[in-house]
Amino acid sequence: MQLGVIGLGRMGANIVRRLLRNNHECVVFNRTPEKVKQLASEGAIGASNLDDFVQKLDKPRAIWLMVPAGDPTEDMVMELAAKLDSGDILIDGGNSYYIDDIRRAKALEARGIHYVDIGTSGGVWGLERGYCMMIGGSETAVKHLDPILQTLAPGQGDISRTSGRDKVGGTAEQGYLHCGSNGAGHFVKMVHNGIEYGIMAAYAEGLNILHHANVGKQQRAASAESTPLRDPEHYQYDFNLPDVAEVWRRGSVIASWLLDLTAIALLKDPQLSTFTGRVSDSGEGRWTITAAIDEGTPAPVLSAALYQRFSSRGEDEFSSKLLSAMRYQFGGHIEEHAEISS
Amino acid sequence: MQLGVIGLGRMGANIVRRLLRNNHECVVFNRTPEKVKQLASEGAIGASNLDDFVQKLDKPRAIWLMVPAGDPTEDMVMELAAKLDSGDILIDGGNSYYIDDIRRAKALEARGIHYVDIGTSGGVWGLERGYCMMIGGSETAVKHLDPILQTLAPGQGDISRTSGRDKVGGTAEQGYLHCGSNGAGHFVKMVHNGIEYGIMAAYAEGLNILHHANVGKQQRAASAESTPLRDPEHYQYDFNLPDVAEVWRRGSVIASWLLDLTAIALLKDPQLSTFTGRVSDSGEGRWTITAAIDEGTPAPVLSAALYQRFSSRGEDEFSSKLLSAMRYQFGGHIEEHAEISS
Amino acid sequence: MQLGVIGLGRMGANIVRRLLRNNHECVVFNRTPEKVKQLASEGAIGASNLDDFVQKLDKPRAIWLMVPAGDPTEDMVMELAAKLDSGDILIDGGNSYYIDDIRRAKALEARGIHYVDIGTSGGVWGLERGYCMMIGGSETAVKHLDPILQTLAPGQGDISRTSGRDKVGGTAEQGYLHCGSNGAGHFVKMVHNGIEYGIMAAYAEGLNILHHANVGKQQRAASAESTPLRDPEHYQYDFNLPDVAEVWRRGSVIASWLLDLTAIALLKDPQLSTFTGRVSDSGEGRWTITAAIDEGTPAPVLSAALYQRFSSRGEDEFSSKLLSAMRYQFGGHIEEHAEISS
Amino acid sequence: MQLGVIGLGRMGANIVRRLLRNNHECVVFNRTPEKVKQLASEGAIGASNLDDFVQKLDKPRAIWLMVPAGDPTEDMVMELAAKLDSGDILIDGGNSYYIDDIRRAKALEARGIHYVDIGTSGGVWGLERGYCMMIGGSETAVKHLDPILQTLAPGQGDISRTSGRDKVGGTAEQGYLHCGSNGAGHFVKMVHNGIEYGIMAAYAEGLNILHHANVGKQQRAASAESTPLRDPEHYQYDFNLPDVAEVWRRGSVIASWLLDLTAIALLKDPQLSTFTGRVSDSGEGRWTITAAIDEGTPAPVLSAALYQRFSSRGEDEFSSKLLSAMRYQFGGHIEEHAEISS
Repeated sequence: MQLGVIGLGRMGANIVRRLLRNNHECVVFNRTPEKVKQLASEGAIGASNLDDFVQKLDKPRAIWLMVPAGDPTEDMVMELAAKLDSGDILIDGGNSYYIDDIRRAKALEARGIHYVDIGTSGGVWGLERGYCMMIGGSETAVKHLDPILQTLAPGQGDISRTSGRDKVGGTAEQGYLHCGSNGAGHFVKMVHNGIEYGIMAAYAEGLNILHHANVGKQQRAASAESTPLRDPEHYQYDFNLPDVAEVWRRGSVIASWLLDLTAIALLKDPQLSTFTGRVSDSGEGRWTITAAIDEGTPAPVLSAALYQRFSSRGEDEFSSKLLSAMRYQFGGHIEEHAEISS
Repeated sequence: MQLGVIGLGRMGANIVRRLLRNNHECVVFNRTPEKVKQLASEGAIGASNLDDFVQKLDKPRAIWLMVPAGDPTEDMVMELAAKLDSGDILIDGGNSYYIDDIRRAKALEARGIHYVDIGTSGGVWGLERGYCMMIGGSETAVKHLDPILQTLAPGQGDISRTSGRDKVGGTAEQGYLHCGSNGAGHFVKMVHNGIEYGIMAAYAEGLNILHHANVGKQQRAASAESTPLRDPEHYQYDFNLPDVAEVWRRGSVIASWLLDLTAIALLKDPQLSTFTGRVSDSGEGRWTITAAIDEGTPAPVLSAALYQRFSSRGEDEFSSKLLSAMRYQFGGHIEEHAEISS
Repeated sequence: MQLGVIGLGRMGANIVRRLLRNNHECVVFNRTPEKVKQLASEGAIGASNLDDFVQKLDKPRAIWLMVPAGDPTEDMVMELAAKLDSGDILIDGGNSYYIDDIRRAKALEARGIHYVDIGTSGGVWGLERGYCMMIGGSETAVKHLDPILQTLAPGQGDISRTSGRDKVGGTAEQGYLHCGSNGAGHFVKMVHNGIEYGIMAAYAEGLNILHHANVGKQQRAASAESTPLRDPEHYQYDFNLPDVAEVWRRGSVIASWLLDLTAIALLKDPQLSTFTGRVSDSGEGRWTITAAIDEGTPAPVLSAALYQRFSSRGEDEFSSKLLSAMRYQFGGHIEEHAEISS
Repeated sequence: MQLGVIGLGRMGANIVRRLLRNNHECVVFNRTPEKVKQLASEGAIGASNLDDFVQKLDKPRAIWLMVPAGDPTEDMVMELAAKLDSGDILIDGGNSYYIDDIRRAKALEARGIHYVDIGTSGGVWGLERGYCMMIGGSETAVKHLDPILQTLAPGQGDISRTSGRDKVGGTAEQGYLHCGSNGAGHFVKMVHNGIEYGIMAAYAEGLNILHHANVGKQQRAASAESTPLRDPEHYQYDFNLPDVAEVWRRGSVIASWLLDLTAIALLKDPQLSTFTGRVSDSGEGRWTITAAIDEGTPAPVLSAALYQRFSSRGEDEFSSKLLSAMRYQFGGHIEEHAEISS
């Protein structure tokens, strides 16, 4: 079928490519015309501006937005909605906050336009592996999009079938799911990313413990300010982390796709010296915690994972200084220099 | 080759079976003779007591212990060591604390006996999938065991090869790894389990947030003791959790084997009504935190995951009562009854 | 000076009493007339309805609301505002979300009414000790209220003066502070309560560790599902917690008012058997975390304290069941019964 | 009475001074003779070496060690014990691990020497305020030391009496407590410090949230890697932190001695620019967590506080790099530079 796609960044462009390869028709638009040209050269129909884009689409139009969350998406939804007709479908495939979906869907519904929110996971690998899609919106609109969704999704593949799934059916085992009414798609994607942060941190903390397992080999100056290691002979291991990550990939309880990627990264650069360790976070992790708190459900692991990212960017600096200031006040403790205590 | 196996529980018996299926010879012993009989009927050579077991093995003997960690393993290592000869290899394949390995290996070395610690992951699925093995001990001993290890390991299978791994080689991509000197195997396995707790908790917290996403539908009595939900309309979702777990299995960033198992469990019993929620922990998670603290490396995610298990068993009860007692003292706050606040 | 007070619960009534004792005039109103009668008998001027209340106040009116946060406060602010005149001052002394203050202040400003938000700490002890007040609003309005604030605040008392404070001055050392524009008062009070949760949890966790320091005396059934204590002889202490809390009150680094209250509670009932351990939370702790996340500042301690309260009310039940379900799937682990593992 | 004191650092010297001021006799020794001379000039009896020290003391000797925990204490206990006689009392007043106390007490008991462990809190303020002391050892030995303990303790002072304490009595309200058998003193002190870390972190996190409450004023470059603040108008506050800390000191629920110190530190240097934020930890915080884990009691708040200190010293660097490496692998995410994201 035909799909209009706006936003031809990393994700958007690959979504178009995956559709083109499977004989769908794509009308594409992007603020920077180079990206439009590039995809036109790969078989897409390029649009030179938003009006051109809207006109080139058959009614009822199906349009997939893949632009940054926040203001860019908000602006585009509103600008575009003004040009659409009743019955058209507008998909937000980005990383929007589900609360914005609820509001936007209501606004568009008044004009007969279907709003569909699709949380899309898969990153740069999606072109080949397919995209896992979590979808919110009306039954009618989601059904209409099914040919597109089927193509973008990974499909059942060679992943073992969940016992009992044959009696239940549904699209979940194809890698896409209509999760509920508007916002449901991005809600599930939000929690997905919250979990992602937690899993990533679990690996990172564990590998960091292995990384420091030779701490007993280091000479430490005795000092009233630092704790000597009681049993240095228990921390004499120089682990080969690329090998450790690799061995866990087969047969272990913690095998996962994130572990596969970790094994690639560690093999390429065991010291990870190309990274500074300033870790970004892109919204969903924060919103997951906000949802947990609104619901009154405890999320200590997911929160700790998020906070570690904040700390990696130095956001705990004032807090740490306060601790040192208090220690100085009650005990006259002077901060140690880096070379001594580490 | 030949292997003696002591301890024919869930894991031990399946290790024997996997070896027998691949034409190794197994001499087996267990305190309860029924299990010996059972495996003898499947092709193993049964031993009636420890002396009989030792005698039936060719020198240099290779013996795999698979008994509960702590006293049972300690007692068996010591009892058995007294009957072994210089050059024999004694493997602890259980969940021992790596610090015990260091001590035991030193004690046995004095008598010329090789001690090898193997952390074994794979659970009840290992018979079919193979076991991921993390190994500590001398080069000589580990090399000698290679035919056994190769058979027990999952092998490369159809898992995608890590980019660059062809130039590096090693056994890691077969699913077993000589990690270092004694204790190294159980150290890596310990951290593996620490990570396992973290990953499990990440899924559990995330799915719990989805589970409560309909909290806006509930009528809550207004009360000075509880916080009303500001925007009930944002929490109106009844998610189908078996489907959500299933959809994440394909193409998403958080696909993993633990997610596969979660999908099975949720499909079978979406309310998990057969479980009470008292979660055990078996040592490695605790030791992981102890190692993190000894090393001075932060492990907030792994700790939170461990503590959640303690709390699930009611170990925070006195702590919670204290909070209520303080609230009563400063504010006259009376505890709410369950029916009101939940 | 004269102050109108609406909401004669625990806090509101004592605020009136403290003002009356210091020769201020109070006009009071409450939905249930009994409370109005009671305070009228103590010297206040009772009002029979809202119109009567407004009429009995001299212009420019100064009115203190002390009603539950959320809808009750919102409704009262809006109902009352309609009856007030330009130049009047409306104080929200309850536990409102500072975001509501910002909005309300803007709405009232359009009509010339000053809105002042006052976070009030002190609980049931405030009548005697005075109230710590954190204030947001315009300079003019806050200055006008100074006679009231001075009376309600604890004053400098016999608390040691902060070194250097004599050169700085200000009302902070009297126990009240104009923190900034609207919302600033409740923002500071919100964080105050967030900190309160953290401090309370620190004592509760520490005392819980002391409470379980005799765990080495208990016989534990060995089991593959539970971790035996390696050194039971290290956990043979039966600590007298009322005495421990008491000794920390003098000369120790952790002396505090919350510790004073803890000592009272523990002396009265060392086992805290009158409490069930279901701990409420009243909004500010949640909002503190939301603010931390919005700002990107890590708050692991304050979050952990909040989540412990959620868990105390059973909100992690589904999460725990999932952990048990995963353990059953990969390892065939059956949950232990309470009597075995605890 | 007479007390021998070894170790004349910050704490040790002030302990001697407090005793001298109250007419006790002190025999003192220190490796560096200058400190001995100094205290001799203040009225103590100086010893030139350990033998001289032992000889100058009346039998049964009472000796207080105040040397760094770990090897220095261990060596001194062992060296000194060889010179003592049956009936002598050896006090470890430092920050020893209670497990070492249990072992040492047993070793000394064989020779008839009483070992007493005293956890001492009070820091540089102890000389004036007195020391809070938590004591482990035999009834006999502790009773014998009572005149010394009474003098060193703060005494009841002007702190309000705990309701009901008059009927219970005991020394706890004098600021010293015999907590139990050997190790009990340092166990209670250990948990005291664990709590101290938690309380300090609670203030630090809360004040950090106030410190960043003006984040809405900052221009942030929009980027796919960072989360824009949804409501910048909610974060426009420039709080005066010295004033905020001050106002909380009177009448608020979170008044405490640590807050008093925080108010001093913030008034002196509101930006805390003399500190780098590398926070040391001195053993007890770590041991508190180890005890919590051994006991199976959850301690998320105390752990988070400890980990924050580790992170402040950069011990999470490899962990953070791993997160960035994974993000790069699955999403092609490039780390942002400091100037953009902060």
